[in-house]
Amino acid sequence: MSFDIIRSGRAVLHVTDLEKSRKFYDSLGFIETESDQEQIFLRGLEEHNHHSLLLKKKAEPALEVISYKVRTEDDLDRLAAKLEQDGCEVKWIDKQPSLGRALRFQDISGMPLEFYATMETVDRKLQQYELYKGAKVQRIDHFNCMVPDVEAAHEYYMKELGFACSEYTSGEEEKIWASWLHRKPSVHDVAFMNGEGPRLHHVGFWLKDPMSLIDGCDVLASLGYGPNIERGPGRHGLSNAFFLYLRDPDGHRIELYNGDYLTSDPDFKPIRWDLDDPMRQTFWGHEAPDCWFEEATEVLQVHNGKKVKLKEAKLKKHKPTFVI
Amino acid sequence: MSFDIIRSGRAVLHVTDLEKSRKFYDSLGFIETESDQEQIFLRGLEEHNHHSLLLKKKAEPALEVISYKVRTEDDLDRLAAKLEQDGCEVKWIDKQPSLGRALRFQDISGMPLEFYATMETVDRKLQQYELYKGAKVQRIDHFNCMVPDVEAAHEYYMKELGFACSEYTSGEEEKIWASWLHRKPSVHDVAFMNGEGPRLHHVGFWLKDPMSLIDGCDVLASLGYGPNIERGPGRHGLSNAFFLYLRDPDGHRIELYNGDYLTSDPDFKPIRWDLDDPMRQTFWGHEAPDCWFEEATEVLQVHNGKKVKLKEAKLKKHKPTFVI
Amino acid sequence: MSFDIIRSGRAVLHVTDLEKSRKFYDSLGFIETESDQEQIFLRGLEEHNHHSLLLKKKAEPALEVISYKVRTEDDLDRLAAKLEQDGCEVKWIDKQPSLGRALRFQDISGMPLEFYATMETVDRKLQQYELYKGAKVQRIDHFNCMVPDVEAAHEYYMKELGFACSEYTSGEEEKIWASWLHRKPSVHDVAFMNGEGPRLHHVGFWLKDPMSLIDGCDVLASLGYGPNIERGPGRHGLSNAFFLYLRDPDGHRIELYNGDYLTSDPDFKPIRWDLDDPMRQTFWGHEAPDCWFEEATEVLQVHNGKKVKLKEAKLKKHKPTFVI
Amino acid sequence: MSFDIIRSGRAVLHVTDLEKSRKFYDSLGFIETESDQEQIFLRGLEEHNHHSLLLKKKAEPALEVISYKVRTEDDLDRLAAKLEQDGCEVKWIDKQPSLGRALRFQDISGMPLEFYATMETVDRKLQQYELYKGAKVQRIDHFNCMVPDVEAAHEYYMKELGFACSEYTSGEEEKIWASWLHRKPSVHDVAFMNGEGPRLHHVGFWLKDPMSLIDGCDVLASLGYGPNIERGPGRHGLSNAFFLYLRDPDGHRIELYNGDYLTSDPDFKPIRWDLDDPMRQTFWGHEAPDCWFEEATEVLQVHNGKKVKLKEAKLKKHKPTFVI
Repeated sequence: MSFDIIRSGRAVLHVTDLEKSRKFYDSLGFIETESDQEQIFLRGLEEHNHHSLLLKKKAEPALEVISYKVRTEDDLDRLAAKLEQDGCEVKWIDKQPSLGRALRFQDISGMPLEFYATMETVDRKLQQYELYKGAKVQRIDHFNCMVPDVEAAHEYYMKELGFACSEYTSGEEEKIWASWLHRKPSVHDVAFMNGEGPRLHHVGFWLKDPMSLIDGCDVLASLGYGPNIERGPGRHGLSNAFFLYLRDPDGHRIELYNGDYLTSDPDFKPIRWDLDDPMRQTFWGHEAPDCWFEEATEVLQVHNGKKVKLKEAKLKKHKPTFVI
Repeated sequence: MSFDIIRSGRAVLHVTDLEKSRKFYDSLGFIETESDQEQIFLRGLEEHNHHSLLLKKKAEPALEVISYKVRTEDDLDRLAAKLEQDGCEVKWIDKQPSLGRALRFQDISGMPLEFYATMETVDRKLQQYELYKGAKVQRIDHFNCMVPDVEAAHEYYMKELGFACSEYTSGEEEKIWASWLHRKPSVHDVAFMNGEGPRLHHVGFWLKDPMSLIDGCDVLASLGYGPNIERGPGRHGLSNAFFLYLRDPDGHRIELYNGDYLTSDPDFKPIRWDLDDPMRQTFWGHEAPDCWFEEATEVLQVHNGKKVKLKEAKLKKHKPTFVI
Repeated sequence: MSFDIIRSGRAVLHVTDLEKSRKFYDSLGFIETESDQEQIFLRGLEEHNHHSLLLKKKAEPALEVISYKVRTEDDLDRLAAKLEQDGCEVKWIDKQPSLGRALRFQDISGMPLEFYATMETVDRKLQQYELYKGAKVQRIDHFNCMVPDVEAAHEYYMKELGFACSEYTSGEEEKIWASWLHRKPSVHDVAFMNGEGPRLHHVGFWLKDPMSLIDGCDVLASLGYGPNIERGPGRHGLSNAFFLYLRDPDGHRIELYNGDYLTSDPDFKPIRWDLDDPMRQTFWGHEAPDCWFEEATEVLQVHNGKKVKLKEAKLKKHKPTFVI
Repeated sequence: MSFDIIRSGRAVLHVTDLEKSRKFYDSLGFIETESDQEQIFLRGLEEHNHHSLLLKKKAEPALEVISYKVRTEDDLDRLAAKLEQDGCEVKWIDKQPSLGRALRFQDISGMPLEFYATMETVDRKLQQYELYKGAKVQRIDHFNCMVPDVEAAHEYYMKELGFACSEYTSGEEEKIWASWLHRKPSVHDVAFMNGEGPRLHHVGFWLKDPMSLIDGCDVLASLGYGPNIERGPGRHGLSNAFFLYLRDPDGHRIELYNGDYLTSDPDFKPIRWDLDDPMRQTFWGHEAPDCWFEEATEVLQVHNGKKVKLKEAKLKKHKPTFVI
């Protein structure tokens, strides 16, 4: 690659009620960097960049964009040149709060992507433990996207954007049903799963340890957010993560996540899981609820702000067959 | 009371395959005190008494008896005198391995009870941490019984046997749907829940901390016991316990349990929960599976060893109505 | 016994600066039930009684009294009768905030004791997890007293007050150097250790799990209380507790404590430890600092409020000899 | 850089008694990949490479080499070319068990380094939780070297080998007293501290969570390794890690480590700590024992296998001045 993508950087979500969203994310332990009538900028306790989650007040819930950080401004230019050469229409945005110039485009699945090299830095709160609360969210970890053609996305991100695959799921005729891809040496910066899309399935945030996830459940429940807990706690077979899935007040799905492993080595071979392996989705054997496979956040076009039209999933199996 | 019941002491379960049972309980971290072709004696890591779980090889799974420890041999005699005066037929057993003489009878719900004052003592393994494994089970905590008339059981245990109530559940017309009763100052030594019975719903074992429960799940799953995890991990609203429910190879239900509170004070007022409060059964709002409300272990008559005939539950509601 | 002591109930400490004390105890997660210019009433998250720690503003730091809860008002009368028969001068106090009548006297070592049957009840915060912070202190657990003649105290509490011994330490000529005694079925409600006294060595508070202790250290350090951490975290061999010792702004010592075991059984035999066993004081082999053996809180006379004169320890060895 | 160093890869330690070493490392939860009369190959539970710790039976304890993994065989050649151009004498080794060809040389401080691109892969045990024991060591994390001239080492690793600095310590006249440097995006792959050297201060291994460290202490103590616990558990201010320092049977120092943060971002500014800041070495304010500053493992010359001669530290202050 002529450009170096560092890691997943931020998600920009449209929400309908800033105050409701603020209370929810505050209960998880996010730090509010700043806010006004139109938006709230949130970050985790260890993050030294301005935000990793931007909530914008809009009429309808949607994903505006998921963003990746690249190494330098030059990387941005080289990425833009490559995209234009590929016939992809890019959009540059110069003025976003706290952010340097950003490059947006629709990826091969129709997901709205953004790339940037610089974001304003702020104080890390890593060692201000008196501020820790709820699940004590540490940092953004990954995006999970539901797309109609996972294999196409998988190929594109690996060949064109330089991602590596840590684990994947195969089902019918050995087609890839889901794929976990990374730039930073964790299990993933982005994952794709087979489904009607393109849609954002969830944004994953890293916790410092498993007890923070249990603490998070207790605080959520105390504050009346029990119904927002959609799935978990449990351990994923795939990725080995200890997980919890939440739905925010607009239905956006958030994963709290701890426990994957180092994927720095070029000789690490992607791990294959069978779609119907009951230990794949939950190592302990619990079935995920149907809504987890069916519901997701719709995404916007970077050029006109309209919703991207959904396409049917290419693979017919929308969820695993449970054999236990 | 003229007699002093100390605590829940042991359960005697009939199992159909000792080797299968041994492997299962071993994976949870139980210590095997001794065993032969007919039975296995198990205890938790902190227990200084010979066993708290006795598995006997039999043709059919069943509960032979749940047992309570009393203070002295005199307490046994006084309890026997009281029972006979009440017209209850008691049975003395002198010769059981590791146990002093024992008094057995059928309680007001038909549950087979046993009382004993002395059990052989053995080495505690509390500080032999190199033996800790799986969920690192520490000690027996409580019994949970499904009975047709909870209110009758509740009254009997409090008035006749000296138990105190920590928490209870009310539903239709303020009738007691479930009750948690204790002798030792924890949330319970025994609980009763409304249902077809008498049946043993589960035996609860105490863990040293919440991480032991997570570790337990991981080890169970690694060893292929994922399908034996029936419910959890989660937190009970009632009792505040962090819980996991397992089904052993014969379907007997075991609860791994951590996190209740001290109930020593005479002025502690029983806490009332509404049956349909979604935070009652799981503080985090998860619904328990139907099998958790429907399936339980049948129990035997202490006098002839035959199965006690089941009666329909007095309260019509067999499980909570979920409103979320 | 003709009276029934339930458990350790509260400590009344004199402090010199209420605001400094408030900040310190707040950082540990205590709940402030109420306060005024003269005093602060604190309790743990699971406590349904008004307070377990009362801080009174005074010119000098001291222990006013350690208090035990008894079952009924009649128990108080029977205890008073017994004490007077023994020639012990008792003092009744009728009017203390939130408390029923209380009986005070100096015990055999000169420690100021108080007994009461009733304390105002308040809301438990056990399941208001959004209030949890710092070490999330749950409840009072025990007192530790430094006295000149441990064996005399040990005998008195067992024979005259009905305590049971869980563990003890012997040194020179098999004399008891320290003793752990309980009424509630935990390792202790009170412990005595050999030293110049009578003095209060520490008050122990129960935590819900080991991670709360680690969290407590982090929050203390963030808030500048690093120098107040005197010893730990570590595991005691004796009691098996995971511990942390703190010094409050007046030098009073507080123990955060998790992990002992059930001592309900009459046939539990007290465990003997050798004073010089390096695993006794810290199972992991760390040496406690000298100040931990030398410094303690002076105590007051219940009749005139003056400091009780210190006596030299009967056993010459003031701390273990470390052999590793 | 024309070459890409991936991460710290393995340490090769000389030990005097393989059986003693085997028992010690086994108690920490290492997996033994293979062994013979001369050596033991150990790895952590998540490692898919053959080993990360190689213990060779020799007459005297010493460090043979610390090794880094590079991306490809070409990287090895380019690194060799650069070193030779700099006048550094390199040594190629072709035949080591499980390893591809390796490049060895003495770094600017005299530390024996090794670089390799390929190591045999083996089964990860990440999800065989039934094998987890002790501290459940997951993977190698970093090396810590005591060297006479930290600033020279710091400059060399950053400018010549492409490392980035996450945190550093300054003392006298703003000279760098210690430095934490990384290739993988964690706090470090290698750290240097001021002292008589070159010596290996410790090898750090990553744990999955803080409770594994507590569990590790308990198991070590149970097995009689209490005296091998040199420092901790505690939290480092610098790096934020929850740590434990152990001395193996030959005195080699091992760190168990959990809790640092992601350092992927090029705009992350190195954090400066003052040498005498009491929160630097232990966030909770505990002083490290003198032996921790004074004792370390001597290292060998890659060309003749003799011990590298020690030089005095350039900065006079060999340990922090404690102000609390």
